[in-house]
Order: sequence, then structure tokens, then C-alpha cells
Amino acid sequence: MSSTAGQVIRCRAAVAWEAGKPLVIEEVEVAPPQTNEVRVKILFTSLCHTDVYFWEAKGQNPLFPRIYGHEAGGIVESVGEGVTDLKPGDQVLPVFTGECKECAHCKSEESNMCDLLRINTDRGVMLNDGKSRFSINGKPIYHFVGTSTFSEYTVIHVGCLAKINPLAPLDKVCVLSCGISTGLGATLNVAKPAKGSTVAVFGLGAVGLAAAEGARIAGASRIIGVDLNSSRFEEAKKFGATEFVNPKDYNKPVQEVIAEMTNGGVDRSVECTGHIDAMISAFECVHDGWGVAVLVGVPHKDAVFKTHPMNLLNERTLKGTFFGNYKPRSDLPSVVEKYMSKELEVEKFITHTVPFSEINKAFEYMLRGEGLRCIIRMEE
Amino acid sequence: MSSTAGQVIRCRAAVAWEAGKPLVIEEVEVAPPQTNEVRVKILFTSLCHTDVYFWEAKGQNPLFPRIYGHEAGGIVESVGEGVTDLKPGDQVLPVFTGECKECAHCKSEESNMCDLLRINTDRGVMLNDGKSRFSINGKPIYHFVGTSTFSEYTVIHVGCLAKINPLAPLDKVCVLSCGISTGLGATLNVAKPAKGSTVAVFGLGAVGLAAAEGARIAGASRIIGVDLNSSRFEEAKKFGATEFVNPKDYNKPVQEVIAEMTNGGVDRSVECTGHIDAMISAFECVHDGWGVAVLVGVPHKDAVFKTHPMNLLNERTLKGTFFGNYKPRSDLPSVVEKYMSKELEVEKFITHTVPFSEINKAFEYMLRGEGLRCIIRMEE
Ligand SMILES: NC(=O)c1ccc[n+]([C@@H]2O[C@H](COP(=O)([O-])OP(=O)(O)OC[C@H]3O[C@@H](n4cnc5c(N)ncnc54)[C@H](O)[C@@H]3O)[C@@H](O)[C@H]2O)c1
Ligand SMILES: NC(=O)c1ccc[n+]([C@@H]2O[C@H](COP(=O)([O-])OP(=O)(O)OC[C@H]3O[C@@H](n4cnc5c(N)ncnc54)[C@H](O)[C@@H]3O)[C@@H](O)[C@H]2O)c1
Ligand SMILES: [Zn+2]
Ligand SMILES: [Zn+2]
Ligand SMILES: [Zn+2]
Ligand SMILES: [Zn+2]
Repeated sequence: MSSTAGQVIRCRAAVAWEAGKPLVIEEVEVAPPQTNEVRVKILFTSLCHTDVYFWEAKGQNPLFPRIYGHEAGGIVESVGEGVTDLKPGDQVLPVFTGECKECAHCKSEESNMCDLLRINTDRGVMLNDGKSRFSINGKPIYHFVGTSTFSEYTVIHVGCLAKINPLAPLDKVCVLSCGISTGLGATLNVAKPAKGSTVAVFGLGAVGLAAAEGARIAGASRIIGVDLNSSRFEEAKKFGATEFVNPKDYNKPVQEVIAEMTNGGVDRSVECTGHIDAMISAFECVHDGWGVAVLVGVPHKDAVFKTHPMNLLNERTLKGTFFGNYKPRSDLPSVVEKYMSKELEVEKFITHTVPFSEINKAFEYMLRGEGLRCIIRMEE
Repeated sequence: MSSTAGQVIRCRAAVAWEAGKPLVIEEVEVAPPQTNEVRVKILFTSLCHTDVYFWEAKGQNPLFPRIYGHEAGGIVESVGEGVTDLKPGDQVLPVFTGECKECAHCKSEESNMCDLLRINTDRGVMLNDGKSRFSINGKPIYHFVGTSTFSEYTVIHVGCLAKINPLAPLDKVCVLSCGISTGLGATLNVAKPAKGSTVAVFGLGAVGLAAAEGARIAGASRIIGVDLNSSRFEEAKKFGATEFVNPKDYNKPVQEVIAEMTNGGVDRSVECTGHIDAMISAFECVHDGWGVAVLVGVPHKDAVFKTHPMNLLNERTLKGTFFGNYKPRSDLPSVVEKYMSKELEVEKFITHTVPFSEINKAFEYMLRGEGLRCIIRMEE
């Protein structure tokens, strides 16, 4: 047992007080973990676009003050009652969606959408008692997707923690806890392109590039990257992209451009932008008869997906996925092993590193579309 | 060689002169088959809702005068140049979608949407020369989906004809040439419900009941029939339906009713109505995590499929199919064999029979939602 077990811990956290305003590093109190909860010392965290969307709160419900962050790696500090799978000192990756191992989804081979612990972006409290474990002078600060990793210590449900190889370097594998696994799994587990097939990837951020990497691993013959930001293109080659399309360069819908490039459409497409136009284009650019489109981007809360039903009748398939259909506790450790065995390279996703005190720089990089993942070191 | 080979044949055909007006039995001239075409003597034909939609021409492009009909059985009268697979006397089922055996779709295991011969409801002429083979006093009458079976003789591309067991009774198996195979295949080939799963079927016409029959054959534990016409319910039990929902009986969306009945949604749904509301409900009523919805109904030409993208992100799958994903020439003969070996019963789909001179009665039955399939006997 660590000396802090059972005690309130005072530590630094980056608090979002208001939508779209720079985070403020504050001293917060972190309560001990309750039943089925674990308190984790975060060592490295990184910024994913999902954090930015909910911090901007433009198309999403605002909930402030809040501690964001869900892509991270850390070490168990102490565990609450009933936690038997983890002990202090274990290396863990927090995940925004969990695995209770008991519900119909956890028991199904097809789903990773745990009834109890699936992503809930509107909930800012712990499941156990409907309260927050964070406070400043007694005033609660909300959690985000059950992880809130922009804090030196955080409390997480045991079902949202993957226990990984203790030798894995957390400053690298922390990016596997959301974006990279999401993109990789969207291609490998859901789109499943056959060897030699053509794949379009919409959005060449970290998630999309991981999807492209998945297509490369699967042996796709052509990987068409699509992004509104042409500066993404050079980088994308490292991830297997063979061609590029910027929808802004054409005065017709990008799905038509892609259909012309590919004799009727790609075999598979993976959408990693969160924008409804891209979702519709990603669907409509797959080949009739056999094409499969996979949606990954988190949509605006009022977004509507629209298409002519004939596009479906023409034997196209449309799917979506959270976390690349990986079950966090069961499957994520093996994704880390793919890195350990050098099958999967994560270094190329990491383009920036900042100390925790400069976390707002990570937001600026993402808002400017600069680089892919920015690692935030909790120790200065 | 039959004595009529190479000659124009004069025979009776039911001509639609105007949208929505009763067909008129006329004497028409049927030209000999050209390259890759076959002239077929139709013995039995039946009415499918697709004929009615295009005859009504409410949500579809009007094209008149036209000879409708695409569910039928007949015998080859003569063949055009280049036809080696069929000879006079062969028993055949015409199909509204074809199989050239050479294009990417025909070569793909997943698709039956032949590039050359897929359904084209706007084309009223033969592919070969862009002309009709039907005329009255030299004035051309348009074809419908390449089959035009409401005629004693018709000319069809060889790729749209399945050669079937010469012992199969055409007055029964003619219904396998469209609706029944479509519904059956939509479930067995596309939705693929696992044994013990729950299936919802929207629309309990012949296509929907065949989809229910497929679910029964696959071992579904619950088959929920959905129809606006409650008189369909009694009949549906013969096809395996275990429960019924009439959306009119509720003041909330039927997808919510079904989700409540099934603890979150059905495992599979098959839409066989052609109505956009039913298509959306059929999609939204499948369980998140693993649910698959299959669209079969032919939509209004201006219909728009709309849903919140989160319904997709929550790991639902949406697909569509023509002709139940069967390849007409390669697969339809084996569906006929299923009937011959008593695995599949088709008699229960046949509720009416009329002589050709009374073909308009078949339209009345369908418009009144009475019965399932009405067989039209070409010989009085
Ligand atoms: N489903 C999940 O489990 C899951 C998990 C993580 C992230 N996400 C979502 O995945 C998406 C991508 O995340 P990221 O971190 O890579 O973001 P990112 O901002 O780094 O990358 C997004 C890219 O999409 C491009 N883009 C935006 N609109 C576009 C359009 N209309 N057409 C083409 N390109 C367009 C942007 O220029 C950018 O390069 C986000 O929506 C994020 O919320 C989903
Ligand atoms: N995709 C294909 O290959 C293919 C092939 C054949 C037929 N079809 C289409 O399949 C559909 C069914 O054909 P059918 O011959 O069985 O027609 P049908 O008219 O016999 O049956 C349709 C049934 O749907 C019901 N219905 C209509 N709107 C509904 C709604 N909103 N909710 C619930 N029920 C509703 C009707 O009451 C009717 O019982 C048609 O759209 C037809 O064009 C498609
Ligand atoms: Zn993320
Ligand atoms: Zn669960
Ligand atoms: Zn039909
Ligand atoms: Zn073909």
C-alpha cells in the first residue's frame, strides 16, 4: 500500500473553467477511489480531438468546470473495494469506454459497447455515487469520459483501465489508449480490407493516419488520403498513403472525384474527421456491390446523416465504431504487445512534447492542424 | 428450331398506356431475338410491388406505353446469335437483374450487381441496339427491367435468364424469379441471423414473408412482423412470425416500441416496404453493438434516408440488397432445387390465380393489400 492510499491527494490538474478558454493549472483535491474504482498516477497524457470538441463545446453540451484528457498512461496508486484485477504499481492505460465483462455487449464477440461503461460524454461524475472525486476548496470539478487524465492523479472505474506490459514505455504507448488504436482497429477490425484492395481515409489526423497504417498492414494496394489541410499530405506518406485528395481542389463532390480515380469507388473507406460532410462522402465513395464505409469521427450533436436509400440498395455497407471495436481490457494489452514486438510503430505519431505546465500549447497545435500527437509530460 | 424462329410473332400482351390506368390486352408484334437475346414463351407470371410502383409512376419516372412484369416462368422459343447456354425448349426464369459473368461484379463473390445487366428501371429498350422488340402497328412499346413478362412472348438478354430444372412446375416456381428469392436471400445471404437471434421484418407482403421464412429457416427465436395493415398478421404466422407490431397502434416511433420489446433492439431487421419511414425505423430498431439492418424495398426516387450519425457510431450496420444477393444465373437454379427437395415451400405465397385476360384483378388485389402473390396464367 502506498502511503497516500485512503487519503485525499492534493496535486496539479489542468482545469477548464469555461468553454474554449485556456486551461488553468490548479491545485485540486483527489478523493480516494471507491468500490470498483482505482486512483491512478498519470505520467504521460496526450491530446485527442475529442477533448478539443468538448472543451470548445460548440456542437456539444457544455459542462464546466471540468478536467479533460483521456489518452494517457499511468501507474496504479491505490484501489477501492472490490478491485482484484489491479494493484498499486501496475502499469495501466485509461480508456474512455470500458469493459465490465458481465453485460451482453462484453459477452458478445462483436461489440465493445459495454452497457455499464460505454462512453458517456454528458456524465461528469463517477458511476458509483454520482459524485466527482475532484474538488477545489470543496467545490466539485467534473470528470470527462470517466478518465480526466489532465491531472497528476485521477480516479477511474476499474473497467476503464487496461493493465499492460510493465516494460512498455508509457511516454510512447500512452497514444494507444485512444486515437491510434481507434484508427488502427477501425481498419483492421471493422473495414477489414482484403489484400490488394483500395482504401480511402478521410481526415489525416492521428486517428486517420492510424487507419491508413492499418490499411498498409492489411496490404491495401492504394490508400487515398483525403483532408482539407494539404499540409497533412507529406506526413501521410509515412503511414502508407499513396495518393491524396483535397476536396477544396475540386468543384464537384469528393465522392465523385474518388469514384473517377477508382473505376467506380474504393473497396473500403474510413472516416476520421467528425464532420458530417466527410461522413456522407466517405459512404458515397465506396464501390457499389461490395464497398464498406466505417465512421469513426465524433459528430456534432445536431448532425444528420443523409443519403439516397438507393446508395444502400446498391449493396454498399455503412458501419460505425468506437475505439476500433477493441475491448479495452481484453484487447488493448495485445495492441501494446504489437508495439513491443515492433510490428506497430507509434513514434511517428508523436510530433510534439510539452511539460504539463504548457498543456495549452498542445491545444494550439491541434487547432492549427500542426503535427499529430503532442505528449504532455506530467513531471516537468 | 421452332417454326416461329426468326419470324415476328404476333401475340397478346397487357399494355400499360398510361400511369395508373388498367392494362389493356393488345395484339403486339414481338421481333426475333438479336445477339445475346432469347425469345421466351411466358407460361405463368405474377405481380410484384415493383411493377405497381412503376405503373403508378408516382415516385418514379414515367415511361409509356410499356409492358410490365418481371416475376415469371417460361420456355425458350428461340435464341439469337451468340447464345450458347440456352436452347429452344429450356425452362427458364427471367430476372430483373442479370449476370454477364464477365464484369467485376460477376467475378466478385460479394456482389450480384452486374455492370452490364443490373436493374435499370429507366431503360425501356434492349441493350443491343437501344430499340424495343415490341410494337403495335410499327409503333414501339417500351420494355420494363429487361423482362416484360406480361406478354405471351418476350425478348430477354441471355444474362437475365436462369435455366432451371425442367421438371420444376412453372406455375409455382415462377414466384422465385423475384419477390420470394429477394426476401429469402435478404435474410439468409445478407442479414445472416444467428440461431436463436431476434429478427424484425418490416412489410409483410410476399417479399417480407419470404424474409420471415428465411429467419425461421435460420433458427431465429423471435420474428417480429411489422405492417401498417393488421390483416397481414394472421397469415404471417405461417411464415414463422411470432409477434406483430402495427406502427399505427402506438404514439411513439415503432423503433422505440421494438427496442422496448427486445431489451434494446433486435439483432437483425429486414425492410420490405419501399417506404422511407420504414427504412429508417428498420435501421434504428436494431441493437447497438451488433445489430444489422438490411434494406430491400424500392424507394421513391426523391426519398432521403436520414439518421443521427451516432446511431451508426454505436456499432450498428446498415446494408441494402437487390434480389437477396443471389446471382441470377449461378444461384437461382439452386433456390428452385430447394423447392424441389421440399426445403422451401412456395405454395403458401400463392393466394390467387387469374387468367391473363383478368390481369387487372392482380393489380386490384395488391392495391387493396389482399393476399400475397397472384399467379397470372397466360393460357386461358
Ligand atoms: N469513434 C471513436 O472511438 C473515436 C476515438 C478517438 C477520436 N475520434 C474522433 O476521430 C476524429 C479524428 O480525431 P483526430 O484526433 O485524428 O483529429 P485531428 O483534428 O487531428 O484530425 C482530423 C483531420 O480531419 C480533417 N478534416 C476536417 N474536416 C474534414 C472534411 N470535411 N474532409 C476531409 N478532412 C477533414 C482535418 O483537417 C484534420 O486533419 C475526431 O472526430 C475525434 O473526435 C473518435
Ligand atoms: N431489392 C429488391 O431486389 C426487390 C425485389 C422485389 C421487390 N422489392 C421491393 O420490396 C418491397 C415489397 O414488395 P412486395 O411485393 O412484398 O409488396 P407488398 O405491397 O405485397 O407488401 C408491402 C407491405 O408493406 C406494408 N407497408 C407499407 N408501408 C409500411 C410502413 N411504413 N411500415 C410497415 N409496413 C408498411 C404494406 O402494408 C404491405 O403489406 C417493394 O418496395 C418492392 O418494390 C425489392
Ligand atoms: Zn480520443
Ligand atoms: Zn459490459
Ligand atoms: Zn419484383
Ligand atoms: Zn456482369
